[in-house]
Amino acid sequence: MSRVYNFSAGPAVLPEEVLKEAAEEMLDYNGTGMSVMEMSHRSKAFEKIIGDAEKSLRDLINIPDNYKVLFLQGGGHQQFAMVPMNLMKNKVADYINTGQWAKRAMLEAKIYGKVNLIASSEDKNYSYIPDLKELKISDDADYVYICHNNTIYGTKYNELPDAGDKILVADMSSDILSEPIDVTKYGLIFAGAQKNIGPAGVVIVIIREDLITEDVLPGTPTMLKYKTHADNNSLYNTPPAYGIYMCGKVFKWLQNKGGLEAMKKINEEKAAILYEYLDSSSMFKGTVVKKDRSLMNVPFITGSDELDAKFVKEAKAAGFENLKGHRTVGGMRASIYNAMPIEGVKALVEFMKKFEQENKK
Amino acid sequence: MSRVYNFSAGPAVLPEEVLKEAAEEMLDYNGTGMSVMEMSHRSKAFEKIIGDAEKSLRDLINIPDNYKVLFLQGGGHQQFAMVPMNLMKNKVADYINTGQWAKRAMLEAKIYGKVNLIASSEDKNYSYIPDLKELKISDDADYVYICHNNTIYGTKYNELPDAGDKILVADMSSDILSEPIDVTKYGLIFAGAQKNIGPAGVVIVIIREDLITEDVLPGTPTMLKYKTHADNNSLYNTPPAYGIYMCGKVFKWLQNKGGLEAMKKINEEKAAILYEYLDSSSMFKGTVVKKDRSLMNVPFITGSDELDAKFVKEAKAAGFENLKGHRTVGGMRASIYNAMPIEGVKALVEFMKKFEQENKK
Repeated sequence: MSRVYNFSAGPAVLPEEVLKEAAEEMLDYNGTGMSVMEMSHRSKAFEKIIGDAEKSLRDLINIPDNYKVLFLQGGGHQQFAMVPMNLMKNKVADYINTGQWAKRAMLEAKIYGKVNLIASSEDKNYSYIPDLKELKISDDADYVYICHNNTIYGTKYNELPDAGDKILVADMSSDILSEPIDVTKYGLIFAGAQKNIGPAGVVIVIIREDLITEDVLPGTPTMLKYKTHADNNSLYNTPPAYGIYMCGKVFKWLQNKGGLEAMKKINEEKAAILYEYLDSSSMFKGTVVKKDRSLMNVPFITGSDELDAKFVKEAKAAGFENLKGHRTVGGMRASIYNAMPIEGVKALVEFMKKFEQENKK
Repeated sequence: MSRVYNFSAGPAVLPEEVLKEAAEEMLDYNGTGMSVMEMSHRSKAFEKIIGDAEKSLRDLINIPDNYKVLFLQGGGHQQFAMVPMNLMKNKVADYINTGQWAKRAMLEAKIYGKVNLIASSEDKNYSYIPDLKELKISDDADYVYICHNNTIYGTKYNELPDAGDKILVADMSSDILSEPIDVTKYGLIFAGAQKNIGPAGVVIVIIREDLITEDVLPGTPTMLKYKTHADNNSLYNTPPAYGIYMCGKVFKWLQNKGGLEAMKKINEEKAAILYEYLDSSSMFKGTVVKKDRSLMNVPFITGSDELDAKFVKEAKAAGFENLKGHRTVGGMRASIYNAMPIEGVKALVEFMKKFEQENKK
């Protein structure tokens, strides 16, 4: 068995320790005589798994008691609909467009009400976060929506928009658990698990209790009401049980690493290795305005499509997987989530240096 | 490691061979250097996994070319909404109520249009399938809905309602792949994977192509349109990738067992062992009208709550797990899905005989 360095934007690398444990427990979880995959979601063993996962997550992010944690299905895309269906009481919402996923969320919200685009970085292919000081929040907006870290473009909010008394909703799919956050600044946070947590098929929702009501838009399916899941501790129907179990393991792994303060330090260190090289290289350069750079997704280009393709090919042959950039940005992208070891980033930079040396004009 | 006999109604037992393979491949799938959980859903390796899973399923059920196979999220409960949102063109549908899940599907459909209850077995706690000869299908119905096998009550349709030119929709969550079916009789079949296939978090939809249209009810979320997923071969967004991989393994396992004709024989044999004993026992008896008995879920009672509880407790101690019946039926329930080996059923009956002997008055 030989493991590669996997820079995929998602689904993405998982901690090797976590995978090893999962493999060991596959036929017999904790003396139950069965796999977690075979376990009734109403069993004591599974109730402990989901309960412990929630506890660890609350501990890691310091989630206040007046917020519920939900483990749902359908990924970020389903949240794009659930957010307006549940929160658009006045049928108005403000969106900031910082990339493909923010835009798709905005288009979905338009099915349900009036959407005000209050800021956008589409003019420069989303290579920056718009100026938040100029922001005009709409008086009648039910909420203000942001995508906190933009996976494709490699940007990140380093400060938050001042939403005043409005509910701030954030898609944190690609940077949840990468550093501490202040949950009280948000009304609702959601994150697909498949980037910085683990397996695809689980989406985590952290929602302030007063936002969980029966007063949703007419025609909202029972499964798409937050209240359905909040009232049943995510066990209204059979949940994605194995995915939740894997999430719980990753949460424990993060706790053992020292929590989110420790992860922030490591993530900053990892990102610095890559960005410092990009800033010094005469071949590779980053595509994002420096102050808005993501700690998780690092897009870079050589300026030559041919050279980009050569790099991706040779990197793959050397054991660096999934470095090809998204087609809308081109070039390369290294996603360096929590589970990417610092050795992987160092090895990548060494490889880039060697490539630069060998291919300079 | 010691495995139990797991009679859970779902999530339920998986073939041990499949779990072993999954454990072995956990850190390095097929020389990719990564787990399937870490794999981009746009990668060649994953495209092959989902493509092969679909091919095996098509082969097993003999799915005609004019039907699409979709791997979705949200379980049966989300289908309860997706079916009317996508198929209720006239806003009318006929439902047959054969248990809790059929009823819940019916209540969900009422959000979207007029629902005609054309038959029900609620009067006798769903212990039979209503007479289908008397059925009056509504002229304006968009579809006729049935729950093909009723997990909680242990009943099963041994013949289908004559829906005429109407679309027949079937929830087959608890008996899909238990025996051959004629797909052409249905417009849409769905099945949550967590009963007779494998892991929770995947729902399989088999839908006739002409039913996949943009003409859905207003307000239908993009993720809840069959067309969204059909147009993208279930890769519109990140799918529940690991679950699909496990489903594919179970499909292969079934192919190696000889397919659905072979499974039907084995399932009939397994069920007969249990039913024959129930019919001969003076302590235990089945709760379902004989002609409507399920091959998958076998509820039975002693007539005494105390004795039922004693049996469940002693059975558990002897390595027979999850035999407690659903609270609406009481007593016991043995779910004997495809992955339950015949040895498990034989051992259970031996245990029941011993219990009967020891506890007879």
